[in-house]
Amino acid sequence: MKVLVINAGSSSLKYQLYEMLNENVLASGRVERIGMDSSIVTHEPADKPEVRDVSEILDHVTAVKRVIDMITHKEYGVIGSMSEIDAVGHRIVHGGEVFKGSVLVTQEVKLEIRRLFDLAPLHNPAHMMGITAVEAVMPEVPQVVVFDTAFHQTMPNTSYLYPVPTVLYRRHKIRRYGFHGTSHAYVSDKAARYLNKPLQSLKMVTCHIGNGASCAAILDGKSFDTSMGMTPLEGLMMGTRSGDIDPAIVPFVMNKEELTLNEANSMLNKHSGMLAISGISSDMREVTEAMHEGDKNAKLAFDMYTYRLRKYIGAYAAAMNGIDVLVFTAGVGENSPDVREAVCEGITFLGIELDKEKNRIRSKEAREISTPNSRIKVLVVPTNEELLIARDTNTIVKELQN
Amino acid sequence: MKVLVINAGSSSLKYQLYEMLNENVLASGRVERIGMDSSIVTHEPADKPEVRDVSEILDHVTAVKRVIDMITHKEYGVIGSMSEIDAVGHRIVHGGEVFKGSVLVTQEVKLEIRRLFDLAPLHNPAHMMGITAVEAVMPEVPQVVVFDTAFHQTMPNTSYLYPVPTVLYRRHKIRRYGFHGTSHAYVSDKAARYLNKPLQSLKMVTCHIGNGASCAAILDGKSFDTSMGMTPLEGLMMGTRSGDIDPAIVPFVMNKEELTLNEANSMLNKHSGMLAISGISSDMREVTEAMHEGDKNAKLAFDMYTYRLRKYIGAYAAAMNGIDVLVFTAGVGENSPDVREAVCEGITFLGIELDKEKNRIRSKEAREISTPNSRIKVLVVPTNEELLIARDTNTIVKELQN
Repeated sequence: MKVLVINAGSSSLKYQLYEMLNENVLASGRVERIGMDSSIVTHEPADKPEVRDVSEILDHVTAVKRVIDMITHKEYGVIGSMSEIDAVGHRIVHGGEVFKGSVLVTQEVKLEIRRLFDLAPLHNPAHMMGITAVEAVMPEVPQVVVFDTAFHQTMPNTSYLYPVPTVLYRRHKIRRYGFHGTSHAYVSDKAARYLNKPLQSLKMVTCHIGNGASCAAILDGKSFDTSMGMTPLEGLMMGTRSGDIDPAIVPFVMNKEELTLNEANSMLNKHSGMLAISGISSDMREVTEAMHEGDKNAKLAFDMYTYRLRKYIGAYAAAMNGIDVLVFTAGVGENSPDVREAVCEGITFLGIELDKEKNRIRSKEAREISTPNSRIKVLVVPTNEELLIARDTNTIVKELQN
Repeated sequence: MKVLVINAGSSSLKYQLYEMLNENVLASGRVERIGMDSSIVTHEPADKPEVRDVSEILDHVTAVKRVIDMITHKEYGVIGSMSEIDAVGHRIVHGGEVFKGSVLVTQEVKLEIRRLFDLAPLHNPAHMMGITAVEAVMPEVPQVVVFDTAFHQTMPNTSYLYPVPTVLYRRHKIRRYGFHGTSHAYVSDKAARYLNKPLQSLKMVTCHIGNGASCAAILDGKSFDTSMGMTPLEGLMMGTRSGDIDPAIVPFVMNKEELTLNEANSMLNKHSGMLAISGISSDMREVTEAMHEGDKNAKLAFDMYTYRLRKYIGAYAAAMNGIDVLVFTAGVGENSPDVREAVCEGITFLGIELDKEKNRIRSKEAREISTPNSRIKVLVVPTNEELLIARDTNTIVKELQN
């Protein structure tokens, strides 16, 4: 079975075409600047050179058509015709309380995703454009939606409720949802396999730290708590997001700086985090580089980032009354030995012993970076959200066919 | 030396008169409903029956005069005349970054407290009314101000800065200050004395949990981090305060419910926390009672409260890379064996072994409630903020006299 995985944003569309027999990526790519005059398609076939094409792509339907053109192209395509695509899987950021797993797209499912526009106004409407565009271009092909929130639906109410008037939950569904669920699910499963132990037997903290960042406490193989909340703003310090702050700061700043609600949101989501403190970049690589060159603000940003992450690991160890495995994943987690070292060296009391040399080795594979004596196993597990979306899509469409 | 300790609110004024020779309280009491037509003075002399008096007290000057009347009264007074009061000590909630310890009241000090009105609009103006009232009634008596924030001024910038645009710190002094500092200082010192170990040698987490609640990480005898932030809203779940929430909830709710900034603040400070979840009370005694009678919402409130507290203890253990001593204090901390048990039994992995019987014994004394084998010592230490204010006042005024 061949599965096309799509991540649709408001002005972009990323794709991967999988052959599920061996889980190989046949091609991947992205359409950028949708709706603007010079849109860019970047297409990367597995065994051929990258292709880049600039043209006018005014909507998501055209974007999907261009993707199909690319992957079926005589010269740089990877399949003969569109009919070889058996299913399409979409990444959806917010599944609310309705979606506890991946599902086939139906009229009812689309209606429910629309009902969640309020909770994820920046993401869900764009995803819906992706779904309807695929429908328009490939009406016969089954589509599956995979939600960032679904894995966290196992959280107990002590984790997901906020201590605010309960009318806010009843009326507006204000609660913790958590995000990056596909990634936390993937790396926790992978970590258990790597350690050759049943996932259910391990108390695990998974750190998905990229430009967005979240921690999860994984107990009995299920999400028990996670640092992102109703929105992806809560929790860890991120590239441009503040993470946790005194909630009273929001009205205080709105008053002092005469900000609108949108401006307050924008300040905390786009102009905070590493970018704000370092004054240099939201990118950990650039911040770390500046730090090593002696930049004090970069050092402060790095120290705040790792300090706040350590506190979450301690909090989640307390949440589960123990921790056996610590997993790092995503851009920073996979590629920053500095961050991993700063985090692990600060919480040795938990029984973590980092192998500093192993920690410095670069690899695309899952690997252990703690010493054999370390009571807590520390792993780096490269995440692969697209593969999990492809797998879920494959499973659900196969069931449909049987 | 005799020291009068005053805690002035906008419509109330609490007082204690100390004989510093033996640190005895000669009398204590409170004036309530200042500015209303039937104000109430409750006066409790140490060795005489309580006196209650209803009269019209329209301002803080009159309130201070009534206090002096009470403590110098022929029948139920405890001193002969006002001239026996050697100094007055005031509790001040917010000392900003200026006040790193207690100080004698001068014109400059009063000006600085006024400059902090913005950061503590509900508290500091009321405290100032207390200071000027004492000045009017007893112009010759030296006054000292003791700040709730001062003890936390030792926090490193990695603890006190928020990952938000740095202009907010420069322009509006938006940072973590922390509160209950007098209490955290008092109980951490007392705990070390109880254990007969140097305070500097102990990694301690102090939990001041009353109607307001905060945790502190005490390292090298100094505050290293604390859960309350720029305001007392951040951190633990409290009687009526939410504590930590996704900051994006604030603009979201303001938009959905068309709330003003004041209404949003009021919702999170006065209508959230235990009260909101239990639907019963902000008082832990009533919530616990309802829980034992089978009330599900009370149980949920209790579980969320203790769960969130456990996470903070874990976070601060991680912050200090270890924990040797856990201290409970204030209303809930001193009087709720249920809360202490739920907290300690959930974090046994840290090396906590609670002595459940000792935990149930009621006492007004500092005491250990962990077993002799417990690696982490767990103590209940009754707090006494008024005594610490009296001591600071005594010390500073004595220095003045030498």
